[in-house]
Amino acid sequence: MIDERLARAALSRLTEPADLRVANALAQVGAVGLYEHIVAGRAQDGVGADAAVRLDTIDPARELEQAERLGVRFVIPGDAEWPSQLDDLAHSEPVSELGGVPIGLWVRGAVRLDHLVDSTAIVGSRTSTTYGEHVAREVAAGVARAGHSVVSGAAFGIDQAAHRGALALDHPSVAVLACGVDRPYPSAHRSLIEHMAQVGAVVSEVPLGCAPLRVRFLARNRIIASLTRGTVLVEAAIRSGALNTAGWAESLSRPLMGVPGPVTSAQSQGVHLWIRRGAASLVTGPEDVLEVIGGMGDHLLEPPREPERARDRLNRRHHRVLEAVPVHQPAPLASIAATAGVGLLEVQRALSYLAGKGFVVRTGAGWRLAEAARP
Amino acid sequence: MIDERLARAALSRLTEPADLRVANALAQVGAVGLYEHIVAGRAQDGVGADAAVRLDTIDPARELEQAERLGVRFVIPGDAEWPSQLDDLAHSEPVSELGGVPIGLWVRGAVRLDHLVDSTAIVGSRTSTTYGEHVAREVAAGVARAGHSVVSGAAFGIDQAAHRGALALDHPSVAVLACGVDRPYPSAHRSLIEHMAQVGAVVSEVPLGCAPLRVRFLARNRIIASLTRGTVLVEAAIRSGALNTAGWAESLSRPLMGVPGPVTSAQSQGVHLWIRRGAASLVTGPEDVLEVIGGMGDHLLEPPREPERARDRLNRRHHRVLEAVPVHQPAPLASIAATAGVGLLEVQRALSYLAGKGFVVRTGAGWRLAEAARP
Repeated sequence: MIDERLARAALSRLTEPADLRVANALAQVGAVGLYEHIVAGRAQDGVGADAAVRLDTIDPARELEQAERLGVRFVIPGDAEWPSQLDDLAHSEPVSELGGVPIGLWVRGAVRLDHLVDSTAIVGSRTSTTYGEHVAREVAAGVARAGHSVVSGAAFGIDQAAHRGALALDHPSVAVLACGVDRPYPSAHRSLIEHMAQVGAVVSEVPLGCAPLRVRFLARNRIIASLTRGTVLVEAAIRSGALNTAGWAESLSRPLMGVPGPVTSAQSQGVHLWIRRGAASLVTGPEDVLEVIGGMGDHLLEPPREPERARDRLNRRHHRVLEAVPVHQPAPLASIAATAGVGLLEVQRALSYLAGKGFVVRTGAGWRLAEAARP
Repeated sequence: MIDERLARAALSRLTEPADLRVANALAQVGAVGLYEHIVAGRAQDGVGADAAVRLDTIDPARELEQAERLGVRFVIPGDAEWPSQLDDLAHSEPVSELGGVPIGLWVRGAVRLDHLVDSTAIVGSRTSTTYGEHVAREVAAGVARAGHSVVSGAAFGIDQAAHRGALALDHPSVAVLACGVDRPYPSAHRSLIEHMAQVGAVVSEVPLGCAPLRVRFLARNRIIASLTRGTVLVEAAIRSGALNTAGWAESLSRPLMGVPGPVTSAQSQGVHLWIRRGAASLVTGPEDVLEVIGGMGDHLLEPPREPERARDRLNRRHHRVLEAVPVHQPAPLASIAATAGVGLLEVQRALSYLAGKGFVVRTGAGWRLAEAARP
């Protein structure tokens, strides 16, 4: 008899992540049941045939021991640390024919997964522009400052810029990998990933040593979208993998946000397309993101304004009269009235008011602008 | 007894444009009636008092003769050339306390106003960036090519860039001025405005010789929005006057579109704000604009795609197997199956298929990628 954790460790190795047939079988017979069915050659829907090719290589007890030695924990549903927001994956529409709640998550790092309910995903193009990286850093820094952990992949471009934005402020950042958490990919990000394992967390659905296969990236994207309260898309070309993560946010009905960029930049085309079709809301910085993902009444955003000028406090009729007053050469009341198209009595009252406020001065020959009010 | 055209010419001089009290009086007693009320000192709501200050300077018959001599026509409701889409202003919500159908329009140029029902407004910041001007030119050129006239103001920045985009292709462009059509403003655009008067049209609600006062700009903006099928906003800072034109498009329930830009650019802030609050739809170029303003089924837009690659035509299971095949060193079937996590029989079938398509080759020691399929 195998226990739940061992069964899930075995299944994590035997199956590829986000396999809907596996999710379906798990829901029907549980992890222990499915493992036993596989061993007995009775698993349905091709799950057994696929798993069989790896069956003689697994040793889940040894795998869990080895993980512990490396400081890696295996978090499964039911654990106190299990991030229950992932359970939404049981009901969301499949994306690229993948889906389902993860069998378990392999985790390195001090940040507890159940504390990520308030986190924000920031994803985007690997081949980002300087502009995109700048914005990703700014958005990450802003949401980190507001107490939201940043979650992303570990790729070049937007992913790394987002992490660096949070880490630069000594805020934790969380990377979800498509390979084992002991296997830095891309290798150029070895020290970045190592740093996150110290101050944040490095998470994967696939066991130690696993390579980053394409299906694992697609499966990984659903973890990023489902772990977080909302996903921010910073630069994505039409074919960018980041749009797959966006698809997961949409499928999960989690807020999806897009940062616009120049329409002349191919790296913003995918983002613009998703905003255009109403799937993503436009955000211009961390304040907008916090307004979208914040709780009720949190982070309500004051639209940006320019400073008020003295003229802004005049009413429209005063404005019209003031505009009809000559800058230098004084003009009589009747001429100002004709220019403004405002009745004589009202012009007289307006000029007195404007003189009191220092906008106009009266001379023997009529009225002209005060020096301070000249354009 | 004065006729309708003379009465409107007189009222055009006596009143400021977009005065709701004037629009109200016109609706009640007509142009001839209102003119007679003003002359008799019986016009209500302060309209009489305002108009009285100009009454002794007007001579509508002479004004119409003079306009004719200068090649300027006065188009009024009921004329064959009257653009009836302007009548929507009778029912739209006031913007900045202004509104109403124009009393008449003073027009220079060959383009007939009743042919502008299909036109597109392109407006934006005077202090535009190189990026904004480039996009304005491109959008204008694209909509002009599709047979839509471009309508804008005559200001520096986006206005002039939009006109130049259409004019460069020898398509007509229409400028709506806040001053008399005989008075080029800004004066640096004298030759641009003159050119439009030759090949397009120059339009104003205010009579010849009138100066460009602030209220006339605000009133003018409603002509731009109501004359056209939709308004495209290209760059607008938070306080840009172009947002007033946007407000008119909104008030008239005409399509309002915004071109995004870098979030780091103040000149795109106003546009982003309007897209964020759902008042403007995001457009990235003329194709998007045509899709929004086009008639049913016209200009349906195919989302941009990247070219399909041979690998794109493989199904997901073939992909998984292909990814598990070593690049150089051949591997046996069982090893490929274990890496892919796909059952043996299926892997065998997939490898045969992939070999047939030239992706993999079989050697004595097993399978490896074909040279042409190497990454």
